[in-house]
Amino acid sequence: MTPIETFPNPAPHGRRYTITHSNPEFTSVCPKTGLPDFGTITVKYVPDKTCIELKALKYYFLDFRNKGIFYEAVTNQILDDLVAACEPLEMEIIAEWMPRGGISSVIVATYKK
Amino acid sequence: MTPIETFPNPAPHGRRYTITHSNPEFTSVCPKTGLPDFGTITVKYVPDKTCIELKALKYYFLDFRNKGIFYEAVTNQILDDLVAACEPLEMEIIAEWMPRGGISSVIVATYKK
Amino acid sequence: MTPIETFPNPAPHGRRYTITHSNPEFTSVCPKTGLPDFGTITVKYVPDKTCIELKALKYYFLDFRNKGIFYEAVTNQILDDLVAACEPLEMEIIAEWMPRGGISSVIVATYKK
Amino acid sequence: MTPIETFPNPAPHGRRYTITHSNPEFTSVCPKTGLPDFGTITVKYVPDKTCIELKALKYYFLDFRNKGIFYEAVTNQILDDLVAACEPLEMEIIAEWMPRGGISSVIVATYKK
Amino acid sequence: MTPIETFPNPAPHGRRYTITHSNPEFTSVCPKTGLPDFGTITVKYVPDKTCIELKALKYYFLDFRNKGIFYEAVTNQILDDLVAACEPLEMEIIAEWMPRGGISSVIVATYKK
Amino acid sequence: MTPIETFPNPAPHGRRYTITHSNPEFTSVCPKTGLPDFGTITVKYVPDKTCIELKALKYYFLDFRNKGIFYEAVTNQILDDLVAACEPLEMEIIAEWMPRGGISSVIVATYKK
Amino acid sequence: MTPIETFPNPAPHGRRYTITHSNPEFTSVCPKTGLPDFGTITVKYVPDKTCIELKALKYYFLDFRNKGIFYEAVTNQILDDLVAACEPLEMEIIAEWMPRGGISSVIVATYKK
Amino acid sequence: MTPIETFPNPAPHGRRYTITHSNPEFTSVCPKTGLPDFGTITVKYVPDKTCIELKALKYYFLDFRNKGIFYEAVTNQILDDLVAACEPLEMEIIAEWMPRGGISSVIVATYKK
Amino acid sequence: MTPIETFPNPAPHGRRYTITHSNPEFTSVCPKTGLPDFGTITVKYVPDKTCIELKALKYYFLDFRNKGIFYEAVTNQILDDLVAACEPLEMEIIAEWMPRGGISSVIVATYKK
Amino acid sequence: MTPIETFPNPAPHGRRYTITHSNPEFTSVCPKTGLPDFGTITVKYVPDKTCIELKALKYYFLDFRNKGIFYEAVTNQILDDLVAACEPLEMEIIAEWMPRGGISSVIVATYKK
Repeated sequence: MTPIETFPNPAPHGRRYTITHSNPEFTSVCPKTGLPDFGTITVKYVPDKTCIELKALKYYFLDFRNKGIFYEAVTNQILDDLVAACEPLEMEIIAEWMPRGGISSVIVATYKK
Repeated sequence: MTPIETFPNPAPHGRRYTITHSNPEFTSVCPKTGLPDFGTITVKYVPDKTCIELKALKYYFLDFRNKGIFYEAVTNQILDDLVAACEPLEMEIIAEWMPRGGISSVIVATYKK
Repeated sequence: MTPIETFPNPAPHGRRYTITHSNPEFTSVCPKTGLPDFGTITVKYVPDKTCIELKALKYYFLDFRNKGIFYEAVTNQILDDLVAACEPLEMEIIAEWMPRGGISSVIVATYKK
Repeated sequence: MTPIETFPNPAPHGRRYTITHSNPEFTSVCPKTGLPDFGTITVKYVPDKTCIELKALKYYFLDFRNKGIFYEAVTNQILDDLVAACEPLEMEIIAEWMPRGGISSVIVATYKK
Repeated sequence: MTPIETFPNPAPHGRRYTITHSNPEFTSVCPKTGLPDFGTITVKYVPDKTCIELKALKYYFLDFRNKGIFYEAVTNQILDDLVAACEPLEMEIIAEWMPRGGISSVIVATYKK
Repeated sequence: MTPIETFPNPAPHGRRYTITHSNPEFTSVCPKTGLPDFGTITVKYVPDKTCIELKALKYYFLDFRNKGIFYEAVTNQILDDLVAACEPLEMEIIAEWMPRGGISSVIVATYKK
Repeated sequence: MTPIETFPNPAPHGRRYTITHSNPEFTSVCPKTGLPDFGTITVKYVPDKTCIELKALKYYFLDFRNKGIFYEAVTNQILDDLVAACEPLEMEIIAEWMPRGGISSVIVATYKK
Repeated sequence: MTPIETFPNPAPHGRRYTITHSNPEFTSVCPKTGLPDFGTITVKYVPDKTCIELKALKYYFLDFRNKGIFYEAVTNQILDDLVAACEPLEMEIIAEWMPRGGISSVIVATYKK
Repeated sequence: MTPIETFPNPAPHGRRYTITHSNPEFTSVCPKTGLPDFGTITVKYVPDKTCIELKALKYYFLDFRNKGIFYEAVTNQILDDLVAACEPLEMEIIAEWMPRGGISSVIVATYKK
Repeated sequence: MTPIETFPNPAPHGRRYTITHSNPEFTSVCPKTGLPDFGTITVKYVPDKTCIELKALKYYFLDFRNKGIFYEAVTNQILDDLVAACEPLEMEIIAEWMPRGGISSVIVATYKK
């Protein structure tokens, strides 16, 4: 997987603030059917010492393009990978999926230090 | 009724997160008039050991297509069936119905372990 | 006035859940000008032993069609009548009125047992 | 200024409920430039013994049409005038202004007895 | 930088109220690529002794037009500058950015006295 | 029925222009069920010598409030009445009805001199 | 199939006007998969001697509920059936289908006498 | 009335193109009731030798603020004044009015050289 | 490439009607940057002897997932392939692309027999 | 100014089709006030032998960032520059500007070979 680059948090020491990145162009592959899934992945976090670099985040998302993985697993893996990379105070991943079989899905996973 | 299949929760042990499935193509039959009702059923839950399999959920919803049942009863039965199937930490069923006699209805039922 | 019929609550004993009925076709008459008022009446409640029957609710609303009554009084009377009829655990009436003299109004009244 | 008329609160004694009047046709004059300002004024309150009469409220708003007054001052004056007139349990004034110099503004002032 | 002018808070002493200014025409320059960024900056604050003058705020925002600065740094600098200028009781800066590489971002920073 | 008042067309002689009045608060009664119908009536016309007076038009619409008449007949009657009253160069009546039995309807009738 | 009832056109002889009925609650069954399809059927026509009765139209649509038939065939059959029933001057059927396999479809068929 | 300033058309000689200015902050006074009317005035034209200067247009619109004039007359007067000022190849005035007595109105007047 | 299957047109001989399929989940790869492009492809056609089978169309679109091809070329190739497969009377391809470098694009290509 | 690069039209010889590029991030400077203007520029054209390269188009738009030029002149200059660069069969430039003095503007200029 593409490493998730970070840069030092430019805010005054101790200020809690929120950063949200939203990617409406996420796609992975359903491991059961081999067909692509499409969704919007939103990353919302309170940085501690480092922030996630936006361009590296884009390439990290691209790594899922041809990977077989279920909705619930994608969401949890992104949370684990990004928490490991930037060690935030809090992070939330919101994955909103296009309808399959007439049913659309949203998965929300949260981390607190 | 179609059995509701489940699969093991892929998240790290102890992480509370939320899964939402929304079906805008739900239909059942009014037992009083024999006419069909149409609505959107949303299932929102915090999984414990298992998650609901999406395809089985679709077939479970299809079983109501020609069944005579009132709004309030549908909502409560879906909650009871899904709770029994996946034993979640929390679950909410939101049933939004198309207007009848000029009046539209929403029923929301919630379960906490 | 049309009596408000009820039926036994089909939910498992002790489950608190919410029922919402929304009628965008409500009309009454302004007692000052004799001109009609138009609005959307929303009834949101947590049932106890009984639920409000939808067809009877429609006829109950129709009784206001040619009745002279102010916004604030309509909202409070509907709350009083429906609480008396079904003795809910909680009830909220939201009355949203079309603009008069360029001003639109919303009245919200709430009951808790 | 037009006096703000009131009428006795028709609700059962002791019921707390909320009345909202929204006027998208408010206009006053900027005291600096002499140019008109346009906005939506929303009055949201919990009545005590009296309610604000809607037609008098309309005429009260019209008094600002050719008056020079800043955004922050308008909002606070309306709150002071309406609180004095009907002595509510709570009141909130929301003033949303059309953009000036590319910037749109919202002022929200609140009163609690 | 353009100094941020203020004027005395016209509200009665001790009233907490909220002022929001929203500028959908903010632009700065990405220091990495030299390309412009576009966004909406919203300033929401509870004034203490002084309020921010709207025209001076507009000119303050214009100073960023050709300045190279990252999303996270812009948001924090605006918060620092405006807090220094008007010493509010509370302030929140919401910076919503147009998509880059398919990803749109929102940064929210908050100050409390 | 309330007579439809008119006033002299203020435009320069021979200018063709279009006047549209839209009433989202129209209601009549279904002659079959006795239940009210609700809709939006739009009157669009090119005046000749006279224009329709707006307040009289409002009272004319009110006359249908308790009148039993079908969708298709309402639309055609309004067209006939208004053409007779103001003898326009062209007129179009658009009647958009709230859903009944899950089906919403629009009737459009047109007149050309 | 339920017969499509009609009633005499109430408009003055020779007036061409348009009637549109829109049903967002149409459902049939895919003959290939046995799964239900959902769509909105809109009927737009210029009546000649007769108009389509709305309640009978509703029952006619209900006959498709458990019938296996493809999108293209449904649309053409409804056009043929309704043209045969009311012999209009013109008719258009617009069938808008919910997404299947990520693809949503619209079929539009037209008849002119 | 404020004179409507113009400037030379900067387009290549003979190119027909369209300029649209839309003012959602127009207000005048109803001569019958003395109450203000509010609307959006849109000016759409094909310039010939001159274009309308935007700031002068703003001041021209302001002249109607306290002037008693009916909807139909406003629209026609604006068309006459602007045609006289810039002698366009074509011009259209669209006046969209906020609801009065529950009825909203749109007047559209057109000029061709 | 996946062959585009067709089936016999079920409409009465000689009826011209329109079929539209819209896929908001199209993705290909930019041959210059190697980065994915995302868009909505809409196919609108008047069938002659055959119609395009929906499932085969889905698989045909999937073939572009990892293919390097420019916007203009994709649109024209889809038009050529689908025209060759079903020999329609008319066909239009509308390709709407997500923004790149802040610019979003739409390509529309049309075929007539 | 940045030269506008082109590439050979990939469509079959003689096919007329339409390409639209829309940039919601256009900004230039008002020559009268020195303040920035913001708008959306849409380029819609039928290519002949060449198409406009998207990245070069982005850089061409950036050249206006600090240039003093009026609305009408911008629109006409972009049309002239792009027509000169790619010699299309037809081209339309739509410039939609954010409100100034409460008035928003749209300029549309068209070229046909």
